[in-house]
Parts: sequence; structure tokens; C-alpha cells
Amino acid sequence: MTVLAVDIGGTKFAAAAVDADGAIAARAEIPLRHRARPEETLLEVVGRVTARVPAARLEGVGIGSAGPLDPVAGTVSPVNIPAWRGFPLVDALGGLLPGRPVRLAGDAQCMALGEWWKGLPERGPSGAVLGMVVSTGVGGGFVLDGAPYLGPTGNAGHIGHITADPDGEPCPCGAAGCVETVASGPSMVRWARANGWTGRDARALALDAHAGVAVAELAFRRAADALATAVLTAAALLDLDHVVVGGGVAAAGPVLLDPLGQAVARNAGLGFLRRLRVAATSLGRDAGLLGAAALVLPR
Amino acid sequence: MTVLAVDIGGTKFAAAAVDADGAIAARAEIPLRHRARPEETLLEVVGRVTARVPAARLEGVGIGSAGPLDPVAGTVSPVNIPAWRGFPLVDALGGLLPGRPVRLAGDAQCMALGEWWKGLPERGPSGAVLGMVVSTGVGGGFVLDGAPYLGPTGNAGHIGHITADPDGEPCPCGAAGCVETVASGPSMVRWARANGWTGRDARALALDAHAGVAVAELAFRRAADALATAVLTAAALLDLDHVVVGGGVAAAGPVLLDPLGQAVARNAGLGFLRRLRVAATSLGRDAGLLGAAALVLPR
Repeated sequence: MTVLAVDIGGTKFAAAAVDADGAIAARAEIPLRHRARPEETLLEVVGRVTARVPAARLEGVGIGSAGPLDPVAGTVSPVNIPAWRGFPLVDALGGLLPGRPVRLAGDAQCMALGEWWKGLPERGPSGAVLGMVVSTGVGGGFVLDGAPYLGPTGNAGHIGHITADPDGEPCPCGAAGCVETVASGPSMVRWARANGWTGRDARALALDAHAGVAVAELAFRRAADALATAVLTAAALLDLDHVVVGGGVAAAGPVLLDPLGQAVARNAGLGFLRRLRVAATSLGRDAGLLGAAALVLPR
Repeated sequence: MTVLAVDIGGTKFAAAAVDADGAIAARAEIPLRHRARPEETLLEVVGRVTARVPAARLEGVGIGSAGPLDPVAGTVSPVNIPAWRGFPLVDALGGLLPGRPVRLAGDAQCMALGEWWKGLPERGPSGAVLGMVVSTGVGGGFVLDGAPYLGPTGNAGHIGHITADPDGEPCPCGAAGCVETVASGPSMVRWARANGWTGRDARALALDAHAGVAVAELAFRRAADALATAVLTAAALLDLDHVVVGGGVAAAGPVLLDPLGQAVARNAGLGFLRRLRVAATSLGRDAGLLGAAALVLPR
């Protein structure tokens, strides 16, 4: 069995034909074009896959998308793509490949599912996994009891909106002190600039942290502390075995993951939290595509 | 089908014969006796049930127990009962009723499951529910996708150990500023006394709050704010529909539940959080027994 996996990110779209064993038979990726019509962009990226794997062989469609999204209505409104406000993505892909099941989940939910399926060889059969995407926002997704947990409205996993500091700065969500106000790329850059740093973006901040620039290191350590609070909260509620971290900011590597692992170990009070393993994604950009495929592949 | 439900609390033990439709055919309750051997206490409370419903008719045993517990090993170590450190509760009840399935979960997990089963008539078939017990500690349990979610080691639901205030006081668990350090009965009493209150216990504090004593009202409002943070955190992660609140401190009623409901409504930023309903348990002390029964009844 082969299915089509689609990954709608904030800056690029990817699609792939994925076999039941997780092998990727064909893959395409195109950068986001803000002025293009969504339907045309989809046709272009899917067409590059079906040019190599005939559409007739694709028996289902799994989609991971940047949020917000409404999996019940089948619509997505990726924050960075104004042309896609409330875009009926499930219907659009169902139109390209009629008669197949189409399933939609968040990008971090798919990342968690992909890592669960193919990235965590030592996991138990009924383990509990959090996938966390640290990027322009902070997103999350769970695999619980061996299945993706999406929630009644599909919104499970909003780990970026856990309170890191009740007295913290206001969050666009309406609450205050959310993890995202400290640990997203733009939040880290904003804090570093307010403390004298003059670089351009999160990538430059990561390079400076690697080079030992104190304010940049501290920006990552602050983010890691907020992420550790979020991780330990999720672990206390869900008895987690594994946390897998991905996303553009997490790609900075040890400057984020080392202090994150240290803060988690330091603050894990309850005994059952001490088995928790926190690691970078082992599948990279494939995690989201594999997880999207797993939404429609038989388990 | 009829099963035996057992509820091991911090101050009393209860047992009941429960039918497949949730009817309680026989029930017994005895106060905790610190000097008694656990086996004798169990025999006494179970014996009062089997005196009315023959043991041969009981086809399974579901147990809810105060924590900590180890559902994998089948042992419990209720904090308030020193004689029960690591007591093999599953084996002991399996010995009383040989050959039946025996399942063990936390008291708050059973409360959530009982409320899901019989206390929430308007819930959807795949809804997500948090049961929260506010008492000498703060415990929690989840029903997700229509089934109890216990976690790989059975420890899911530790909502009392979410961080309410990173700069807060140390918690016996080893972390700092846990919800339990603000919102448990003993924590509320400790804070009120440090601020001039001279009463005896959480029950007296609730009476004073009802009577309009300012420091007592404020103790409940502080607890409600910490609980609201915990509730919204769980809702953001798990896309919750319902939160049901029980336990001795919650029995204080509006002095806790009104400010809790207000704080949740005030701080619910993300759209999907606004559907969340927070209410007191509608089943009272039956919730735990019904949930324990539901662990072994067919679904």
C-alpha cells in the first residue's frame, strides 16, 4: 500500500509517496509562493510526485499542516500564509485524488507520529511520546498508547501556550507568559535585542551562541528553561517516555538541547519523570511526511 | 455482569458491587484504622459486600487508590497510611476473589472515569475529560477518546505537580512552586495562618470563607488561580471538553468553584479552550467506585 503525504510548512510545501513500511518512493518540495493560488501550489507539488508514482497507486492522503487548523472542517489557516485563511485543504486534496480517505493533523502532531513510527527504535509498544517543534512558534503533538492523540477538535498538543511565567509578557493568544513568548525564535531574538544584541534573526543568534557570545547563550538558556517547564508539565500529566524536539530553532542543536536536557533533569521531581528521554529529531524533515502518511496507513 | 469496586482513600475504605449499567447493588464503607493489618481491613470491607451479593457473582475487581501507586507491580503506598507502604493490593484482592481480572488505577483517575461514565450526560462519545481531586493533595485523571488514559507506568494525571509559580515554595516532590504547594488543603491552611488566620483546618477555612472572612476568601482565591493555571494547561495540551472537580477541599463549593470558573474564563486565550466546562462532581463519593468498576466492566 502506498499513500500520499503532504506537509504544509510556514516557508515550504512538501509531498511524498510513502509505502506501508515507511519507505519514501518519490518526494517533491517547493518554496511557499505568497501570491500563488493555493490550489495551483498544491497541484504543482502533488504533480511532481504523481509524475513518478501514478496517482492510481495512491490509496489515501495524509496531511500535516502548520496551524491554526480545523481538522473537523478540514480547513487550515497557516499563520504565515495570508492567502490560505480558512483554506479547505482536505476538500482540495480530495478533489485531486477522489474517493480516497483524507486525514489532516497539525505539523507537530505529524512530527510526533513520524518519530514514533520510524524514529524511536527503543520505544515500547504502548509508550507515550511528545513531539515538540521549536520554530517561529512552539508546537507539540502526542502519541499515546501507540496512536496519535489529536483531541475532540484536533487541537491537542498546544504546548507553546502553557504558562511559563504567570507574570510574563502578553501572548497574542490572549493569555500571558506562554512558553511561546520566551522560547520561539522571534521571542528569543526580541529578548536578545532588548539586552544589547544586534544580530538579524534566530539563525544568527544560534551562530553567536555557538561562538560563545554571552547574551546569545543566555537567550537560548532562557528558552530552554521555559521549554523544560513545558516538557515536565506534559510528562507529569501524560506519564511520557520520550520527548523529540525538532523545528528551525531546535536545529541550533546543543546550544538549545544541552540546557534543555539539564533543566529537565534538574527539575524532574516525581520518580516516574526520571525515565524521560529528551532528544533531537532523528528523522529531520522526513518526520512530518512519515507522520502524515501514518495518519492513513493501517496500524 | 456485576463487579466488585474498591476505593482506598486517605481516611476511609469503600467497596461496592456494581452492575454493568452502573447500579450499585451493595455498598460498604469503613474508616481507616491505622493499626489494623491491611489484609484484615480489606476482608472486613469486602466481606460486608459479599454478605449481600455472593462472591460467585462478582466477575472482576476494579480498584481506585490514593497514591503513590504502581499499577504495573500492583502495589499501593497511600501517603496517609504508613502500614500500607508498597502493599500488594492487586494480589491481596486477587486472593479474596481468585481467577477474576483485577485492575488498579489512581483515585482521581477512577473519579474521572466514573464521571465520564455516569456523571456527564451531555458529553460526546469521543470527548476529553479531566477529573481533579482537591483534598490533602491535588490529583487528576483523564478520560481521552472515551477510555481512561493511565500512561505507560500508570502515573498519568499528576496535575498537582504542574508548576504554578517557578519562584514558589519547594514541593516535597523535589520541584518548586507546584500547584499542590498552593491549592491543597494543608497548603491553603498554612498560607492563611502565615497571614494571620488562626483556625484549625481546611474545613474551618472554608466556613470562614463562606462567612466572608477576607483572609480565608483570599486563600481560596489563590488556590483557584493556581488550579485555573493547571486546568488551562491540561486543556491546551489535551483539547479538553470537561473538567470535573471533587475532593474534600472542593466540597467547600462556590468559594472555590466560582473563582476557579472565573479565572479559567479570564485566562482562556486560544479559541478551542473557550468551550471548556468546569463543574463540581455530580456523583460525589460514588464517582470513584463507579470509575473503579468501569476499569473491569466491558466498554
